[in-house]
Amino acid sequence: MALKFLELTLFSLLVALVSIANASDPDIVIDFLVPANSTGVNGTFFTYSGMRGIFDGEDPATFKVTKATFLEFPALLGQSVSLAVLQFPAGSTNPPHSHPRSAELLFVIDGSLEVGLIDTTNKLYNQTLQEGDMFVFPKGLVHYQYNANTQEAATAVSAFGSANAGAVSVPASVFTTGIDDSILAKAFKTDVTTIQKLKAGLAPKA
Amino acid sequence: MALKFLELTLFSLLVALVSIANASDPDIVIDFLVPANSTGVNGTFFTYSGMRGIFDGEDPATFKVTKATFLEFPALLGQSVSLAVLQFPAGSTNPPHSHPRSAELLFVIDGSLEVGLIDTTNKLYNQTLQEGDMFVFPKGLVHYQYNANTQEAATAVSAFGSANAGAVSVPASVFTTGIDDSILAKAFKTDVTTIQKLKAGLAPKA
Amino acid sequence: MALKFLELTLFSLLVALVSIANASDPDIVIDFLVPANSTGVNGTFFTYSGMRGIFDGEDPATFKVTKATFLEFPALLGQSVSLAVLQFPAGSTNPPHSHPRSAELLFVIDGSLEVGLIDTTNKLYNQTLQEGDMFVFPKGLVHYQYNANTQEAATAVSAFGSANAGAVSVPASVFTTGIDDSILAKAFKTDVTTIQKLKAGLAPKA
Amino acid sequence: MALKFLELTLFSLLVALVSIANASDPDIVIDFLVPANSTGVNGTFFTYSGMRGIFDGEDPATFKVTKATFLEFPALLGQSVSLAVLQFPAGSTNPPHSHPRSAELLFVIDGSLEVGLIDTTNKLYNQTLQEGDMFVFPKGLVHYQYNANTQEAATAVSAFGSANAGAVSVPASVFTTGIDDSILAKAFKTDVTTIQKLKAGLAPKA
Amino acid sequence: MALKFLELTLFSLLVALVSIANASDPDIVIDFLVPANSTGVNGTFFTYSGMRGIFDGEDPATFKVTKATFLEFPALLGQSVSLAVLQFPAGSTNPPHSHPRSAELLFVIDGSLEVGLIDTTNKLYNQTLQEGDMFVFPKGLVHYQYNANTQEAATAVSAFGSANAGAVSVPASVFTTGIDDSILAKAFKTDVTTIQKLKAGLAPKA
Amino acid sequence: MALKFLELTLFSLLVALVSIANASDPDIVIDFLVPANSTGVNGTFFTYSGMRGIFDGEDPATFKVTKATFLEFPALLGQSVSLAVLQFPAGSTNPPHSHPRSAELLFVIDGSLEVGLIDTTNKLYNQTLQEGDMFVFPKGLVHYQYNANTQEAATAVSAFGSANAGAVSVPASVFTTGIDDSILAKAFKTDVTTIQKLKAGLAPKA
Repeated sequence: MALKFLELTLFSLLVALVSIANASDPDIVIDFLVPANSTGVNGTFFTYSGMRGIFDGEDPATFKVTKATFLEFPALLGQSVSLAVLQFPAGSTNPPHSHPRSAELLFVIDGSLEVGLIDTTNKLYNQTLQEGDMFVFPKGLVHYQYNANTQEAATAVSAFGSANAGAVSVPASVFTTGIDDSILAKAFKTDVTTIQKLKAGLAPKA
Repeated sequence: MALKFLELTLFSLLVALVSIANASDPDIVIDFLVPANSTGVNGTFFTYSGMRGIFDGEDPATFKVTKATFLEFPALLGQSVSLAVLQFPAGSTNPPHSHPRSAELLFVIDGSLEVGLIDTTNKLYNQTLQEGDMFVFPKGLVHYQYNANTQEAATAVSAFGSANAGAVSVPASVFTTGIDDSILAKAFKTDVTTIQKLKAGLAPKA
Repeated sequence: MALKFLELTLFSLLVALVSIANASDPDIVIDFLVPANSTGVNGTFFTYSGMRGIFDGEDPATFKVTKATFLEFPALLGQSVSLAVLQFPAGSTNPPHSHPRSAELLFVIDGSLEVGLIDTTNKLYNQTLQEGDMFVFPKGLVHYQYNANTQEAATAVSAFGSANAGAVSVPASVFTTGIDDSILAKAFKTDVTTIQKLKAGLAPKA
Repeated sequence: MALKFLELTLFSLLVALVSIANASDPDIVIDFLVPANSTGVNGTFFTYSGMRGIFDGEDPATFKVTKATFLEFPALLGQSVSLAVLQFPAGSTNPPHSHPRSAELLFVIDGSLEVGLIDTTNKLYNQTLQEGDMFVFPKGLVHYQYNANTQEAATAVSAFGSANAGAVSVPASVFTTGIDDSILAKAFKTDVTTIQKLKAGLAPKA
Repeated sequence: MALKFLELTLFSLLVALVSIANASDPDIVIDFLVPANSTGVNGTFFTYSGMRGIFDGEDPATFKVTKATFLEFPALLGQSVSLAVLQFPAGSTNPPHSHPRSAELLFVIDGSLEVGLIDTTNKLYNQTLQEGDMFVFPKGLVHYQYNANTQEAATAVSAFGSANAGAVSVPASVFTTGIDDSILAKAFKTDVTTIQKLKAGLAPKA
Repeated sequence: MALKFLELTLFSLLVALVSIANASDPDIVIDFLVPANSTGVNGTFFTYSGMRGIFDGEDPATFKVTKATFLEFPALLGQSVSLAVLQFPAGSTNPPHSHPRSAELLFVIDGSLEVGLIDTTNKLYNQTLQEGDMFVFPKGLVHYQYNANTQEAATAVSAFGSANAGAVSVPASVFTTGIDDSILAKAFKTDVTTIQKLKAGLAPKA
C-alpha cells in the first residue's frame, strides 16, 4: 500500500510520515514511499533510466562515478539500497575516501583494478581484482581504487546497503575546505609550505 | 549535506523527513568479522572471485541466478550488502518470488527485461526495462522478471541491503512442499485435480 | 512527553517528525505520538474499542481477519506491536500468505487449527494446534492455517512485532492482479488454460 | 534455511551466530534459529503448548501472569514478538511496573479492567476497558491494571514487540532489594519508619 | 580492528560475538538535520553554549540535573547521543528512576557518589564511586545516586546513547499523578493512610 | 536478568549469544551481558576505575585521548554508549579523523578549543569553544580539534552513542600504511616527492 504525502487530511500526513520514518527499520509500516507531488504511481515510479546508455558511450576522460541514490531515484527512499557505476580510464584513480552510511560491495564488470582498504588499526589490505571479482569495503573505513593498466579502461558496479551512503573524500575534505594551514601542518607533522603546495594542487582550476 | 525542512517544494520535505527517519542507528562495535578458522587476514579475505568469468562464459540454458551472499563470501557478514547476477536466456522467466530480508535493486547490464511488482493491496506495477535501466522491488513484496525477447539473452546485476536477502519462490514454496491438496484447493478456490496438475508440472524431474 | 504534529511553529513540527521517525528505534526521542488534529490526549487515545463484542457476535460465514494496526488504532504508531483476531468457521482456511514486516505469533483461544510454514529452502513445517497452543511464523515466510474441524469454529489471536506487518496473499497477488497468462504459465510450468482457470476461480464475483 | 549451533566446523558456528545476531534486525541473514542441541527441526519446534488449558483451569487466587517469551519458547528468538496471559481475580491488581524492552498491547478477552499509564512528564492516562478492548502502554513507561469488579475475574492477552520485554516492578525493585532505608526516605521525602513499614509489607512471607 | 572467533580466551569470543551482533544497521541518508526555520547553517548550529559557566557557578541547593538533549540542542537530532550534568550538594540524592530510551554512562568528575542499580530479577548492584570513576546503568532499569558525603558536593557527567533518553522518576510517577489511593495500597501491600502520607510528602509545596 | 556465556548446557549459550546479539537493538532480550569467565556479578562489574585520577595527574606532553569503550570496560557491551577524555596541552591538535560507528558529542570541561567539521559536500563548519560548551560531530564525518591557546591546557569529555565508535585518523591511515607513493601522488594531485616527505614526517620515530 503506497500513501502520498500531504494529502488534504492530517491523518494521511501522519501515515505518510510514519511510513518514511520507519522505512529502513525493523518495523516498516507501509510498502513504499511516494513523493507528495506524484500524480499517480505506476511502474515508472520504480524505474530509473538515468544511466541508460552508460555502457555504450565514450569512456570519460578522468575517473567518473555515476550514482543512483534516493536523490536521483526517489523510489529508493526507505529501501536501504543503492548502486553506483565507477568508470576508470587507463591509469586513473579514485582517491582515498570513506562512506559514512554503508559498506560498499564493488563488482568489476570490465577490466582490472587495484584496491586498498585501511582499518581502524591502520592496517592496509590491498588486492588486484580481475573482471568478475568483488571486494567489500566495510562501513566508514578509508579505501581507494586504482586502474594500473595504462592502456585499458575499467568499469565497476558498486552496491551499498543504504539509499544514500555518502562519500567523504580525504583530499577534498582536508585540503580544499579552508582548514587553517597551521592546524594542518601540525596535524600532518609537516610545514606550512607543504600544506600550501597540497592545497594548490587540489584547488579547483580557474 | 544538510537539508532544511519545509523548503518550497514538497520533494525537499520528503528528503528532509527521510533523513530524520533514518538518522539513528544501532552501533557496530568492530570494523569487520573474520571466521574463527582464519589463519590471518589479508586483502584476499575481502575479495570474492567466485564469479570470475561469468560474463565470458556461455549463456545458461535456463534462467540462472548466481549469488554472492555471506554464505559464498564470508566477509559480507555484518556489512548489510550483497549482489547477484541474473542471466535470462531468450524467452526465460524468473518466477514470482519475494525476498524476506531486503529490497532488491535490479540493474540491466545487457538486453531488456519485463518486470512486475505486486504491493500488499494487490496492485501490479510492471515495466519494460532496457540496458542501463534499474528497477527497485521493495522488501517482502512478490515480483518477477521476464525476458520477452525470443532471440537475445539478458543479464542483470541485483543489489540487496542485506548480507543474505533470502528468496521465497511462490511456485516452489506452495506447490512442491507437500501442502495438502485439499487445503490448496480451498485456498486457490479450485479443484484438487488442478492442484495436482500444478504440482506435477513443478515436481523435480526424475 | 507527547507532542502534537503541525503546531504553529516549525520547530514543533521538527520535534513531532523526529519523534515519529525514531519511534520504533533504539533511540526513540519522545514517549508516544499524537495525530496533528487531536484536541487533547487522554486515556481514550491509548484505547481501541473497535473489536468490542467480537467474541460475542455470530461466527462469520467465511474465514475473517480483524486487524488492530496503526491504521485502525493510531496510538500504535511507533510502538512496534499490533494484534489481529482470526476467525475460522468450520472447514475454512486462511490461504498461503506472508507478512513482509514482522513475524507472527498465533495463539489459539478457541477450537483447533492445522498450520503450516515453508522456509526459504522449501521445507514445510506443519502442526495441529489445540486451544491454548501457540505457533510462530518467522518474518517474510509463506504460511497458512486451516480449521480441519467440519463442525466447530476456531478463533486465534495473532501478535506482530510491527505496527503494520502487512500481508501478501499468494493466490490474490499472483492470480488476480493482471500478470500475463503466458508469464504465469512459464513460471508455474503449466499451460495458459490452467492459469486462466485459476484466475477465473479467484476473480471477484460480479 | 535453519542452522544449528555448534556444528563441528567453525564456519557453521559463525553462520549460526550471525543468524542470531541479526535475527531481529533490518537485515536478518537466515530464516530462524535452532538451539544447538536440537536433533532435527519439525513443526513442533515452532509450537508452544505450555499454556494449553489455561482458559479451562480454575481461576488463580491472586493476579497471575503467564509468559511466552524466548525463555519458555525458544523459537521466538530473533522473531521480535512474545505474548503473555494476564489473569485477574476479582479485585486484584497488577502493580505499577514498566517493560524496558517493548511497548505492551493489552487485549481484554474476558471481564473488564481499569488501566493507567504515566508518561515522562508525570501525566496519568487512565481508562476503563471492557471485553474486546485494547490499550497500548508505550515502551519503558510505568503502568498498572486493576480489576475493580469485586465479583468477576478478568483475563487479558498482552502482545510485545520483543522476544523478552522484561518487567521492572516498582514495589519490588524499590522496596525489596535492600536499598538503604535512609536513601529511600530521602528519595520519597518521608521518614525511615514509613520506608520500613512499606518494606515489611512487601517482604516475602516466611 | 578485526577479531577472530574462538580465540583461546572467552573474552575474545565475547568480543567477536558482539561485533557480529551489532554489525548491521539501518542507514542514515543525509549528514545531519537542520530545523526548517534556520536561515543558514554554520559552526554555531553544532554548538551548545547553554551550560557555559556551569562549573564556575555556586553549587545548587538541592540535587540538580542539567540536560543537553535535542530539545535544548537541536543539532543532536538524529545523532543518537546526549549529555547531562548532575550536581549533588552534600547529602543529596537522585531518587530511583529509569530512562526508557537509553543506558546511562555516569562519570564522576568531582567528589564521590554511592550508586545503585536493580535488574529485572530484583537484584541490587551498588557501589561507591570516586572522582574519575564511571558506572553504567543499563537501559530501562531502575537506579539511583546518593552523595553520602555530608560536607562536600559531587558532580557527574552522564552520557546517553539517545538524543533524548527520557526519565521516569519512581516517586513522582507513582505518588504524584493521581493514581487511586486504593489501587496503590493494594499494589504496595500497605494501607491507604500510608499511601496518603507518601503522597503528601511528595506533593509540590504551595 | 544477566546470563553468563558458555555455561555447561548449550541452551544457556544460545541464550547468552542472543542477549549479546540484540543488546543495542530495538528488541534487547536480557538486561545486560556478562563475560563468560566472570565468577559472579556485583556492583564492581558496572564500574570502571581506569580513569581514576585522570584530572589530578600532570598534563600529558602531547595530545592524549583516554577511552572507555567496551574493550576497556566490558559492561558497556550492548549498552550503546561510551566516553573518552581528551587532553590538549597548550597549542596541541587532534588531527583530522572520523568515527565510523557514532556521532561524537564533545564537552569542554576546562580551557578552550577550536573545532572544525567537514560535511560530505566539503563544507567546513568551525567554531571556538569555551569551558562548558558542547559541539556535536555527526557520524562518519571528518573533524578536528585544536587548542590555540599557547599557555593553557584544555580538557574535554566526549560521549559516543556506541560502545566502540572507532577512529580513522586521516594522516595515519593515508600516509603511514604503505599505500603506493604513485597512487597517493595521483590522488592528492601532487608529486611523489611531496608524498614521501609527508610519509617521512608521520612515520614512527625509531
